[in-house]
Amino acid sequence: MNTADLGLPVDVPSTALFTDQYEFTMLQAAMKAGTAERRSVFEVFTRRLPEGRRYGVVAGTGRVLDAVENFRFDPDVLAFLRERKIVDEETLDWLADYRFSGDIWGYPEGEVYFPGSPIMRVEGTFAECVLLETVILSVLNHDSAIAAAASRMSSAAGERPLIEMGARRTHELAAVAASRAAYLGGFTSTSDLAAGFRYGIPTVGTSAHAFTLLHDRERDAFQAQVKSMGRGTTLLVDTYDVAEAVRTAVEVAGPELGAVRIDSGDLLLVAHRVRQQLDELGATDTRIIVTSDLDEYAIASLAAAPVDAYGVGTQLVTGSGHPTCSMVYKLVARAESTDPTAPLLPVAKKSTGGKTSIGGRKWAARRLDEYGVAEAEVVGTGPVPDALADRQLLVELVKGGDVVARESLDVVRDRHTAARANLPLSATQLSRGEPVIPTEYVNGRSGSLTGS
Amino acid sequence: MNTADLGLPVDVPSTALFTDQYEFTMLQAAMKAGTAERRSVFEVFTRRLPEGRRYGVVAGTGRVLDAVENFRFDPDVLAFLRERKIVDEETLDWLADYRFSGDIWGYPEGEVYFPGSPIMRVEGTFAECVLLETVILSVLNHDSAIAAAASRMSSAAGERPLIEMGARRTHELAAVAASRAAYLGGFTSTSDLAAGFRYGIPTVGTSAHAFTLLHDRERDAFQAQVKSMGRGTTLLVDTYDVAEAVRTAVEVAGPELGAVRIDSGDLLLVAHRVRQQLDELGATDTRIIVTSDLDEYAIASLAAAPVDAYGVGTQLVTGSGHPTCSMVYKLVARAESTDPTAPLLPVAKKSTGGKTSIGGRKWAARRLDEYGVAEAEVVGTGPVPDALADRQLLVELVKGGDVVARESLDVVRDRHTAARANLPLSATQLSRGEPVIPTEYVNGRSGSLTGS
Repeated sequence: MNTADLGLPVDVPSTALFTDQYEFTMLQAAMKAGTAERRSVFEVFTRRLPEGRRYGVVAGTGRVLDAVENFRFDPDVLAFLRERKIVDEETLDWLADYRFSGDIWGYPEGEVYFPGSPIMRVEGTFAECVLLETVILSVLNHDSAIAAAASRMSSAAGERPLIEMGARRTHELAAVAASRAAYLGGFTSTSDLAAGFRYGIPTVGTSAHAFTLLHDRERDAFQAQVKSMGRGTTLLVDTYDVAEAVRTAVEVAGPELGAVRIDSGDLLLVAHRVRQQLDELGATDTRIIVTSDLDEYAIASLAAAPVDAYGVGTQLVTGSGHPTCSMVYKLVARAESTDPTAPLLPVAKKSTGGKTSIGGRKWAARRLDEYGVAEAEVVGTGPVPDALADRQLLVELVKGGDVVARESLDVVRDRHTAARANLPLSATQLSRGEPVIPTEYVNGRSGSLTGS
Repeated sequence: MNTADLGLPVDVPSTALFTDQYEFTMLQAAMKAGTAERRSVFEVFTRRLPEGRRYGVVAGTGRVLDAVENFRFDPDVLAFLRERKIVDEETLDWLADYRFSGDIWGYPEGEVYFPGSPIMRVEGTFAECVLLETVILSVLNHDSAIAAAASRMSSAAGERPLIEMGARRTHELAAVAASRAAYLGGFTSTSDLAAGFRYGIPTVGTSAHAFTLLHDRERDAFQAQVKSMGRGTTLLVDTYDVAEAVRTAVEVAGPELGAVRIDSGDLLLVAHRVRQQLDELGATDTRIIVTSDLDEYAIASLAAAPVDAYGVGTQLVTGSGHPTCSMVYKLVARAESTDPTAPLLPVAKKSTGGKTSIGGRKWAARRLDEYGVAEAEVVGTGPVPDALADRQLLVELVKGGDVVARESLDVVRDRHTAARANLPLSATQLSRGEPVIPTEYVNGRSGSLTGS
């Protein structure tokens, strides 16, 4: 494949290069040392939620599965690695045949997570697993950050629709993933046509101030839009004087006018005035859409205002203050030898400088209280206690290299709604606080419980 | 083209869908109203810098030029727009032949900018220009945010190399653009192989804690790495005990050991101890690389520490607190009619709710003081004062649809260094402050100067 085929402002022929160079250096060194084929378990988890957040949202799992399937080394990529002397010929030969053949388990997409939740577990040889670190973290860290912000915004919006409008505020392809994560987190639609094309998300859009300014009079612009889109369209009413624009809009479209959009000013005040004016003009069914630097707090503050839908841009695609998660991909267990039947030893960084973690392959379960509400995220090594056996969180995603858990985005979206609804009520408080349930670690050997 | 050809975890056949739906609704309505062919001028600018920042950095211009060239409607895209009923058949026919045929001028990539700087100016028919809004803003808002953070970090680092290591903390393709913007802003290299492949940026990378944990002893891991990569490699010394690891590292590699990397703990303290230990072991040329949640403040705080290079991840790719810019794309002038010779009228949003702007096609120049240091960003409509004629900032990028200003990334990187050096000294203060030079508006008719 060459650049022209792509037609994209990118030129990366497969997911294999979405990879930090050190993954390849480790691969080559392990091959030379005879340790590359040791069976290994890597886990994705986060040591903390973003400050003040009460839960995290797993997003990007479906994109990870695509990335793993497309993690192949075509001749262009191999030539690049050779030319840059990143690995030697023996390693290049191995890479030419690369295909992940291991197993991946993980929290199903849309689930909530907490500090220490083993969000994804990748198992296979060290060689095949280590290479996937960077792309898996890129996808999960980005998408989960956006989904978490979307989830808070959708809680704040209640039943009112949320439109994702952030494409212009983030990288053009990050925007497509952001639309996906926003929909997962409860958004209703997107302005981004690439997201509609790629993921089937409903798309919406009407007009900008430029359209009004293009015409000699605001009335001309409104007439042009109504002629083109019908009376059900949304007219932007804040280019000049809002009250005059609302009057003109109803004159042009009649009381059947679909909606008006307000994109500046004191939205609370303006929404009340516009609602009153619309009602006086008989346009009682005309909706009001607001779209001006909204975040979850602004949305919540408009709960009592006569607003029918929110459009959210910047704060959505930047994770409302937390544009990334701090997920890491850590080796937690590996075999003593390359014998496929060798037992797995738990391993973990032990330095005193922080960033320590807990070794061993983990399970996780969400313990419920007597009312069926989540009360703890229980993470353990060793056998799963009987009482938690049917509350386990990890599901099989890839088996022997084959993706076994493709899901539609609507299934994932519904799962998130259900998972959030199962948390204690304080989960959806917008104020800063602690994770809404604690993480408890079960030591495989003693079976004892320890709070995080 | 089909999905399989792409091999990417994306499936967007051209840049034409990196577009908000409302651009297409405006296009169709303007076509019906007979206004779509009115000659129009759109400008990209920002009303403010991120809070406390003293200058902005123009980045992404080269990517914008690629995006404009690839803004074409292939059959897949047209079929999608038809199926979703986003535009009608007449509009689809027009889109099938779309090719931007206008002119683009802009600040050259790498330049600094200030509130009101006309960073890019797009001129042509309303129809051809309005469609480009979303993708142009996506690219410039993302890339400029990263470049601004990179520039501050490179000021703080002085002559010490900076390694971009943030791929795992942002969307996998945003990461590639972020590496590019970081290099532009003064970074030395990247860990992201896709950025090396796509943009020729130098790549680096050695090993992670997982590599040490894979082996039975730290010594085995170090021996494996040195055997594979040579004595010039960088050994990671904070998996267990740092002092013991440094001792082992020098035993294994000898005093020719290239570098040690420290990824956790109190970097100031640990760097001093490690330097002393390395010197005592005779490894006086072994360098120390630090990499643990660094930002420009942490880098500055290590200025007096024996550190030889910094690796920066999260804070770089998230713009160090400002992951996007607030650039907008506004219609500032348009013809009275579709006659190509009709005069251009300045236009601007006038609503009282904020977000107002200044109409008219603008020029910009940087006025220097008697010592040749920048003292004001002068932005005006109408004729350029003689004294500023040779200090104009906008250059021609696209002429009649053809890209006329392709540049290498090294040229852009050098331009940024020079532009920053030409600002008052306080530009590189890390503390929060006002833009380092004011923006002055020159009214075309009166020639009078007004401070912003």
